[in-house]
Amino acid sequence: MKITGLTVHAFEPRPNAHQETTEYMSAATRQNGVAVISTDEGIEGVVSTLAGTAKQLANLWAEARGHIEGADPLDRGGIENVLRRRYSWPSRVLGVLDYGLWDIAGKAFDLPVYRLLGATREKVLAYGSTVHHATDERFIEIALEAKARGFTAVKLHPYGAADDDIRMCYAVRKAVGDKMNLMLDTLAYPGPYSRHDAFRVGRVLDELGFWWFEDPLPKTDLDGLAALTKACQRVQVRMADRVEDIREYAEMVRRRCMDIMAGPASFGITDLMKLSAMAEVNHMNMEPHDFGGGIASLHVLLAVANADYYELAVPQGCFDTALYPGVYLDPMDIDSDGFVHAPTKPGLGFGIDLTEAKKITEQTVVV
Amino acid sequence: MKITGLTVHAFEPRPNAHQETTEYMSAATRQNGVAVISTDEGIEGVVSTLAGTAKQLANLWAEARGHIEGADPLDRGGIENVLRRRYSWPSRVLGVLDYGLWDIAGKAFDLPVYRLLGATREKVLAYGSTVHHATDERFIEIALEAKARGFTAVKLHPYGAADDDIRMCYAVRKAVGDKMNLMLDTLAYPGPYSRHDAFRVGRVLDELGFWWFEDPLPKTDLDGLAALTKACQRVQVRMADRVEDIREYAEMVRRRCMDIMAGPASFGITDLMKLSAMAEVNHMNMEPHDFGGGIASLHVLLAVANADYYELAVPQGCFDTALYPGVYLDPMDIDSDGFVHAPTKPGLGFGIDLTEAKKITEQTVVV
Repeated sequence: MKITGLTVHAFEPRPNAHQETTEYMSAATRQNGVAVISTDEGIEGVVSTLAGTAKQLANLWAEARGHIEGADPLDRGGIENVLRRRYSWPSRVLGVLDYGLWDIAGKAFDLPVYRLLGATREKVLAYGSTVHHATDERFIEIALEAKARGFTAVKLHPYGAADDDIRMCYAVRKAVGDKMNLMLDTLAYPGPYSRHDAFRVGRVLDELGFWWFEDPLPKTDLDGLAALTKACQRVQVRMADRVEDIREYAEMVRRRCMDIMAGPASFGITDLMKLSAMAEVNHMNMEPHDFGGGIASLHVLLAVANADYYELAVPQGCFDTALYPGVYLDPMDIDSDGFVHAPTKPGLGFGIDLTEAKKITEQTVVV
Repeated sequence: MKITGLTVHAFEPRPNAHQETTEYMSAATRQNGVAVISTDEGIEGVVSTLAGTAKQLANLWAEARGHIEGADPLDRGGIENVLRRRYSWPSRVLGVLDYGLWDIAGKAFDLPVYRLLGATREKVLAYGSTVHHATDERFIEIALEAKARGFTAVKLHPYGAADDDIRMCYAVRKAVGDKMNLMLDTLAYPGPYSRHDAFRVGRVLDELGFWWFEDPLPKTDLDGLAALTKACQRVQVRMADRVEDIREYAEMVRRRCMDIMAGPASFGITDLMKLSAMAEVNHMNMEPHDFGGGIASLHVLLAVANADYYELAVPQGCFDTALYPGVYLDPMDIDSDGFVHAPTKPGLGFGIDLTEAKKITEQTVVV
């Protein structure tokens, strides 16, 4: 089998009706896209991703075409090493290619990807991941709605001001009760918190029994992170979504800068499996990110034992596949106990109706 | 597909004609065996290993039968996690099962295992790995013979006495010239060298430009290993073949106890891939072991970029498959440039003539 080309469809941007304006808001609109890697045997690797990442893949592909087209899509190691080393592809773009190559492998062998990876389980808990809301009341409303749907855990993306965040955490904990796991994600690179703020918030999260404290300080502050990890007694420090290369973890792990390793969003399945191995050897969990970003990290979660949660945006329709009705054939959801279940289709198992997709496509790039 | 059972054949022990008696000798005889994992679809996982390890697998299998038989052989994660956690299987026995499950996966998908792992390359250099010889002259003879066959590197298993080892290293370096890579493996757990000896030998290996210094101190001496790794300027410290669990590497890597991570012999492909990932994140190579032990580590080497050498016993017939003529259908060898090439058969690609094997089988265990 040989790779023959790439087609990228960038969908129309869609406003996110659930996103109020706050200082540390997530983007008010989202533009999804799809990358389709073709082969001479008719099998296609189909990857749902952000339109910008898909277009970046198209640009980089054109420059490195001779090292991709004609190669066997199963030879991920050989292809990706050249693109990383000789062409300096960013890990998040290489990740989209990697998802596509795994999708092709799964389809070639007629198996979901997690089973090619050596399945460990058939379902995993999900946590509901909020956007940056404007009021405590709205956070409470979203958390209670998630709880009612069956979520056993909710991650809050707060205001980004320590006093306000502390007040909101108290309010949400009081509203949802003690049994729900809560996480706080400050998106701290470049980061809203000073060291002093991070320690103050950490003490409150300890008191409230939060499950993890995500990106509490910039990834460059190794001393601060190591001290915070040691200081937090109940809440676990989770780092770092904002690395550019898995090797940034070498020094962070050596210096004990976290309790839980993160698997950065849009890093490939190959990279995530490496980080999971690194975490396992170091007696930690590796929890991947997947904020409305499809299904790739779910395969990693189902293949390994040292991870607890899949990330799913709440409320439904917020940044996720519901923004483009009819396009995504296999929208993710939880069962009444809060679990997402293994995909059953071959490959990534994330079908896209390309006829519907073309109707809302703003730009198509054939490389 | 479901796993249905295990059959183990322990071959007759064979004397190793190449092994002279020395204080730190390897075993004077070798007893190989084969483990055959059967499935309900007729595909068999066939693993060449030491007879003792195969019989240990049979014993442990019987106790944990309910967690293995009936399981899908592709679900390596689920099967192996239970056996490791609930039944405390040693990594070297779990490794044999893991090889068998990968062999089944490769045969099911009609591909050599390294291609399921995402191939990086099609060949890799081998080093010739000696036994413990009794005289400098014999070491020189074996090294020159290896050089003539095309080996670009030779690993010496020395006497285990620092003064004698130093003398022998000088003599071998002088005989083979400066272009051949040389390694010294002291098998130091529990270990022949004191700290003082290890530093003395390390200084000589630096002077002689050896490639690596393997297991120079016991794995438990983290301070000594970190100091030695820092002290050695040219020769690279390689640790540790004698770990029982990949998680022993956490503290060794954190404390910088090596330049090169080892992949312990008979650890599974799954474990070796995890160690390779750990090494990659930490900017190191992971070099697996495979002393006459079949072909499993070759698949890992072909799947990754951060490793240089496959281990192959010298002279031919020494501990390797040539001890049982006619049994092994795909004996490993190097080309004239010193490379071993990728297996082409599906699975591990290491065929055994079971009719021939039964003729020299001492004991068969059907679990």
